[in-house]
Amino acid sequence: MYVDLGNALNGQPRLTREALDRLDDRVADAHERIARGRADADHGYAALNLPDTVDADAVRAAVADFDDPETVLTVGIGGSALGAATLTEALGGDVDHYILDNVDPAHVGTLLDSLSLADTVVHVVSRSGTTAETLSNFLVVREAMTDAGVDWTERTLVTTGEAGNLRSLAERHDLPALDVPAGVPGRFSALSTVALPVAALAGADIEGLLDGARAEADRLSGSLFESPAYAYGAACYALERRGAGVNAMMPYAESLEYFAEWFAQLWAESLGKDAVGQTPVRALGATDQHSQLQLYRAGPRDKLVTLVRPRERPEVPIPETDLDGLSYLGGESLGGLLDAEFEATEASLAAADCPNIRVEIDRVDAHGIGELLYGMEAACVLYGELANVSTFTQPAVEWGKRAARGLLGGGDFPEADAVGEKRELLVE
Amino acid sequence: MYVDLGNALNGQPRLTREALDRLDDRVADAHERIARGRADADHGYAALNLPDTVDADAVRAAVADFDDPETVLTVGIGGSALGAATLTEALGGDVDHYILDNVDPAHVGTLLDSLSLADTVVHVVSRSGTTAETLSNFLVVREAMTDAGVDWTERTLVTTGEAGNLRSLAERHDLPALDVPAGVPGRFSALSTVALPVAALAGADIEGLLDGARAEADRLSGSLFESPAYAYGAACYALERRGAGVNAMMPYAESLEYFAEWFAQLWAESLGKDAVGQTPVRALGATDQHSQLQLYRAGPRDKLVTLVRPRERPEVPIPETDLDGLSYLGGESLGGLLDAEFEATEASLAAADCPNIRVEIDRVDAHGIGELLYGMEAACVLYGELANVSTFTQPAVEWGKRAARGLLGGGDFPEADAVGEKRELLVE
Repeated sequence: MYVDLGNALNGQPRLTREALDRLDDRVADAHERIARGRADADHGYAALNLPDTVDADAVRAAVADFDDPETVLTVGIGGSALGAATLTEALGGDVDHYILDNVDPAHVGTLLDSLSLADTVVHVVSRSGTTAETLSNFLVVREAMTDAGVDWTERTLVTTGEAGNLRSLAERHDLPALDVPAGVPGRFSALSTVALPVAALAGADIEGLLDGARAEADRLSGSLFESPAYAYGAACYALERRGAGVNAMMPYAESLEYFAEWFAQLWAESLGKDAVGQTPVRALGATDQHSQLQLYRAGPRDKLVTLVRPRERPEVPIPETDLDGLSYLGGESLGGLLDAEFEATEASLAAADCPNIRVEIDRVDAHGIGELLYGMEAACVLYGELANVSTFTQPAVEWGKRAARGLLGGGDFPEADAVGEKRELLVE
Repeated sequence: MYVDLGNALNGQPRLTREALDRLDDRVADAHERIARGRADADHGYAALNLPDTVDADAVRAAVADFDDPETVLTVGIGGSALGAATLTEALGGDVDHYILDNVDPAHVGTLLDSLSLADTVVHVVSRSGTTAETLSNFLVVREAMTDAGVDWTERTLVTTGEAGNLRSLAERHDLPALDVPAGVPGRFSALSTVALPVAALAGADIEGLLDGARAEADRLSGSLFESPAYAYGAACYALERRGAGVNAMMPYAESLEYFAEWFAQLWAESLGKDAVGQTPVRALGATDQHSQLQLYRAGPRDKLVTLVRPRERPEVPIPETDLDGLSYLGGESLGGLLDAEFEATEASLAAADCPNIRVEIDRVDAHGIGELLYGMEAACVLYGELANVSTFTQPAVEWGKRAARGLLGGGDFPEADAVGEKRELLVE
C-alpha cells in the first residue's frame, strides 16, 4: 500500500509537516503499545496477528465438501458479512455471492425465490450464536430449503464461538464448523474464518491475500514516515483534531465499493466514542464527482477526502468516434479516462484547499486487497491509540439491542419502555 | 409522506419548538418565492412542476417499440442515472436494470460480457450530449453490440437536450429520443423523461408515481407544520445551523438503498455551497446498526439521523424454534423484527440526545415513492431558500471536468497544469 500525504498538508483544516514531525514521537509510543498488545494477543490487537495465526488449511478443509457451488449465501450482519462481501466483490471468482445482512421481508423473500437452493452453500456467521437478525434469517432460509426438498444439513457451513446455539446446532447435525478467532472483533475479522471461507469457495487466492497482509504488517514501524498504514492513521487523527470531522472514502474502482462500506464500519464503530471519531462517508469515483464533489469542494471545511486506486487496470479502449468535440476520447482507454478523473479531482480538491490523501495498491488482486485491508486496520488501531479511545469495543450498540429484544417479548428490558415514551410532532 | 419531528427537538445540537415557530415566518416567505418560481417555471423551480408537466404518454410511446426486453442498461452519470436506479430498485418490475455510471474498465468489460445484448435496451442519458464518461461508455457499448451482431440502432433510446451529439445521432439513426425537460437540473429529474422510461420498461405504475408526487405537491403550504416536505427541510436547515453538519439518511428497507444515494446527491450538490451544507451519509437499517450506530450515539454531537420506513411490509413469518434463548423470535415476522429494530434505534438515539427525524410512507409502492422523492426535492428547495444558496447550480464540479479534459488532450485548460504540480509526501 502506498500512502501519499502531500495533499493532506497546508489545506483547511490546516495540518503542517512540522505537526506531523511532532506527532511522530507519539506514533513511536503507540507502535510500542500495539506491538506489546500483539505479542500478548490482547483483545483486538490479536486481529493484527491474523495473517500468521489464521489456519488457512482448516478453512479450505471446511469448504472442501461443497463441490463447486453456484451460489454462496452469507447469513450474518455487520462484521460478519462486510469482510466477505469486500473480498468477493474485489476478487471476483466462480460463485455468485449474496448476503443476508438485514431482516427486510421484501428482500429476503425475493432473494430466496430467485436462488437455486440446491446449488447454494449457506454460511451462517455469528460469534454469540444468538444475533437476532442472523438467527431469524437462518431459520427462514432453513425452512425455505426444507420446503424446496433440499437437505439443509448438506448445504450449511457455520462460523461461530466455542459455545452457543450455532455451535450446538453444528454438533447435532454434524455441520462443518469453524471457530471465530479469539480476541478479534467482527469489524477486524476479514482475514479470518469469518470471511475467508466464502473467498475460498469463490476460488480466490487466500495465500496471496495473507501474503499481502503480511507485507503490510512488516512495514509497521515506530515512524509514520516509514509505515503507510500509520501514515494514514496518524494523518486522519491529526486532521480530525483540527476539524476534519468527515472522512470521505472514495475508491476509483467499482470493485472497491464494498471496501468503502467495510471501511465505514471499521472507522465508525472503532473510533466513534467519547464524543470523538471521524464520520466515514462512502463515495465512489468517478461517479460521485457528479454527486458529492460540489459539497467537498465548496461546503464546510470539515472534510478529508481519501482517494484510493489501483496503479494498474485492465485495458478497455474507447472506440474512435467522429462525434462532435469527442474525438479526443477516441484511442484513449476507459482506465486512462478514469485515472485522468482521479488526478483531476485530486488537484481540484487541493486547489480548493480541501485536504486529501492518495492511497494506492498495485492491482485489485489478492495481494493488493490483503495490503489494503490490513493497512486500514492498522491505521485504525493507531488512530485509536492516539485518540485514546477503546478501539475494540462498541458499547453504544447494546442499548438498542436490549430495547428491541424487550419490544419483541424476549425479556424484561427497561430500554423497551423508552420506545413507548416517544415524543411526537407529526406533520402529514 | 409523514414527517415526525418529535425526536428532533431538545437534543444536541439543540433545536426547540419555539425556534421552529419563529422559523415558520421565514418558511412562509420562502414558500412564496418557491410558488412564484414555479409559476414562472424558473430554472430549478420548474422541477417541482414535473408531476403536471411531464408527458407520460410520450414516455410510453418512446419505449413502446421495445417489446419486453430482458434487461435495460442505463448509460448516464449522476442525476442521469440515480433517479432511474432509485425507481427500479424500489418498484421492482419485469426487467433487470443495470447502470453504467462509471468508467471502470474492470466493471464495464465484465458487465457487457454477462449481458445478452440482443435482449437489452440501452438508455443513454446526457443533457449536453458530451459528458465524457457517458459518451465513452456508450461508444464501448455500441461497439460491443456491433461485435455481437446486434443492431444497436434497434436497441437504443436517447434522452438528451435539443441539440448536441446525442440529438444528431438520434436523428441520423432514427432512434427514439426524449427531451430532457427545460429548467430541471439532473438531480431533480427522477420524475421526468430522464428516469421514467426505465420505470415504464420495467412495467412500473407511472401514473401512481406521479399521483403520489402530486399529492405531496398539494401539501406544500406557507407553514412547516402543515407540509411534511417543508417540515423536513426546515428542521434539517435549523439543525445544521446549530451544528448538525451531518445528516445520516437511514431507510429501513433494502429497496430504498438507492433512494439514500439519490438523496445524497440531491442534498450534497444542491446545498454544499458557500461553506455551508449538510454532509449526507447513506446508511441502511437495520444493517448499519451494526456499523454506524456506535458513532451516531457516542461520537461528536454533529449529527441528525433520518429514519425512513414504510408503514406496511410484506409478511414473512419467522419459523418456530427450540434454539436456546431464541424462542421469542418464533411466530414473530421479519417485518416485526425490523420495525422493532427501527423503534429501538430511534429511542436509543433519543436517549443519547441525538436528534432524529422519522419519515414514513404507507408502502414502498409507486404512490409512496412519488411522495417520498417529491417531498425530499421540495425539502431541499426550501432548505436552499432558507440558507440563501444557489440550490440549482453546481459550479464546483466544473474545475475538475476542465482539468480532466485538459489531461486527455481535449483542449488547452490551465486547470490541467495544476495536476502536474501535485505535492508529494509518499510513504511506501
